[in-house]
Amino acid sequence: MGVGTTQLETAPEPKYWHLKTVLSEALDSEFSVGEILPNERDLAARFGVARATLRQALEQLELEGRLQRRRGVGTTVAPPRVGVAVDPARHTWPGATGDDWQPVDAVRTDRVPAAVARLLETAPGDVVHVVRRNRVSVGRPVAAELLYVPSEVLPGDAESTTGPAHAHAVLAELQTLELDGHDRTVELGSARAEDARLLDRLPGAPVLVVTTRYVSGGRTAAVAVSTYRADTCRLTFGESETEPLLAG
Amino acid sequence: MGVGTTQLETAPEPKYWHLKTVLSEALDSEFSVGEILPNERDLAARFGVARATLRQALEQLELEGRLQRRRGVGTTVAPPRVGVAVDPARHTWPGATGDDWQPVDAVRTDRVPAAVARLLETAPGDVVHVVRRNRVSVGRPVAAELLYVPSEVLPGDAESTTGPAHAHAVLAELQTLELDGHDRTVELGSARAEDARLLDRLPGAPVLVVTTRYVSGGRTAAVAVSTYRADTCRLTFGESETEPLLAG
Repeated sequence: MGVGTTQLETAPEPKYWHLKTVLSEALDSEFSVGEILPNERDLAARFGVARATLRQALEQLELEGRLQRRRGVGTTVAPPRVGVAVDPARHTWPGATGDDWQPVDAVRTDRVPAAVARLLETAPGDVVHVVRRNRVSVGRPVAAELLYVPSEVLPGDAESTTGPAHAHAVLAELQTLELDGHDRTVELGSARAEDARLLDRLPGAPVLVVTTRYVSGGRTAAVAVSTYRADTCRLTFGESETEPLLAG
Repeated sequence: MGVGTTQLETAPEPKYWHLKTVLSEALDSEFSVGEILPNERDLAARFGVARATLRQALEQLELEGRLQRRRGVGTTVAPPRVGVAVDPARHTWPGATGDDWQPVDAVRTDRVPAAVARLLETAPGDVVHVVRRNRVSVGRPVAAELLYVPSEVLPGDAESTTGPAHAHAVLAELQTLELDGHDRTVELGSARAEDARLLDRLPGAPVLVVTTRYVSGGRTAAVAVSTYRADTCRLTFGESETEPLLAG
C-alpha cells in the first residue's frame, strides 16, 4: 500500500497563519510554560514581519490557548488546557454529593434573562431563585454558574434564608425532587463583567457557555448557565464518570 | 416571601458593554434577521459613542452570534443559532446509519498532528487513514471533520481505493469492529484555512472543536476532530436521541 501525501490542506494560507505555525514551533522548542515573550517590536523584527501580522498571529495563539495576554504582565506561554468534566451521563441534581461546584450565594428575583424564562416557561412576575456557584480546578477558578429555580418548583419554597444559607437551602430542596433527566447545550459566549472578574479575565473574553436544563415532573425545573474560561479549559464528556475508557 | 433585587451584577461595566446591551435591544426591536446594519460612522453618531467603542460592542455581538460580519456585505443581523446534536450517548461508529455526516474523500498518510498521534498512540511512520467529512444542517455547512484511523486497526486494511470510495471503505470497515465506547472534549479553536473555506468563514474565525476518541479492543481505534462554526451553532447533548425530554 502506497502512502500518498495528504491533499487535504491545499488552500492558500494568509501570512499571519504561516507565522502562527512558526511561532507555535518556537513556543514548543524555546520557551517554557509561564515564560514571558519578548515584546512585539522585538518579535516582529526577529521573524521579519509587520507588527500587524505579528499581532494577528498572537491573537490566534491566544484563541487556541497557547498564549495568555494579561494587562501589566505581558504575553506568557500558557499551560496546557485543563480537561474539565461536564458529564452529561451523570443523572443527578446540581449540588448532589461529589459535585465540584461551590455554592456562593443566592437571591430571589422576578427578573431573569429572556432566554432562561423561555426554557423555564415562567411568566413575568414569577419568582425565581438564582443560585451562584463557582467551580475551581487545580486551585484556579475555571467556571461560574447561575442556577435558576422557579420558586413554585420547590416543595418548601425556600425559607427566609439569605446568602450562602439560601443557596444551600435551594440545592437541598432540589435533591428531594424526582429528576426525570437533563440535556445540555454548549456555545461560544463572551464573559459578563461579573464572571470575567471571578475568572480573572477581561469583560468580553471568549467563554464556553454550558446551558443545562433539568426536567422534573414533566416540566423544566431548573436551568443552569455555566460559564467556562475558553482559554484554559477543555470540556470533557465521558460515557462513564468513574471508569475512564483508557488510562491515557 | 419578599422579592429582593438581584445583587449578582454589581461589577462596573465598561462603556462598550453598556452599548452592547443597548444595541442588542435595538436589534430585537428595530431590525430583522439578515438586515444590513447602518455603517459604523452612522451607528456611532446615533448612539453618541466613539468609533472604537462601537467596534468593541459589534465584536462582542458577533462573538455572541447576534451579528455576522462578512467581507463585501457588511454587518448583518444573524439568525438564531442552530442546535446541532453531538449525542455523546449514541454508541455507534462514525458512518453508522443515520449519521448526519457526508464523507468527502480520504488519504493515507504517515503524518498526523502531534495531539492526534498521542491519542492514537501511533509511532512515527505508522500509516493512518484520514477521512474528511462534512456536516450540513438546514442546507448550510456547519462543521468539517477529519477522522483519523490507524491502518493497522482495520481488518481489511482498506483496499487500493482513493477519494470518496476510500472514505466509504474506511467507514464500512469501522462498522465491523466492536466499539467499546467513546469520549469527547469540546474546546475553542480557530478555523484552519481549509475548514474556514468550507464553512464560509475567514481563517482564524472562532470555532468549537469537538475531539472524539473511539475505543475498540482496548485501544484508541479512531479519533475524530470536528470543527463547528461557533457563530451559528449551539452544540446539543441529550440523554436520548430519539426522545427529546420536552417538546419545547
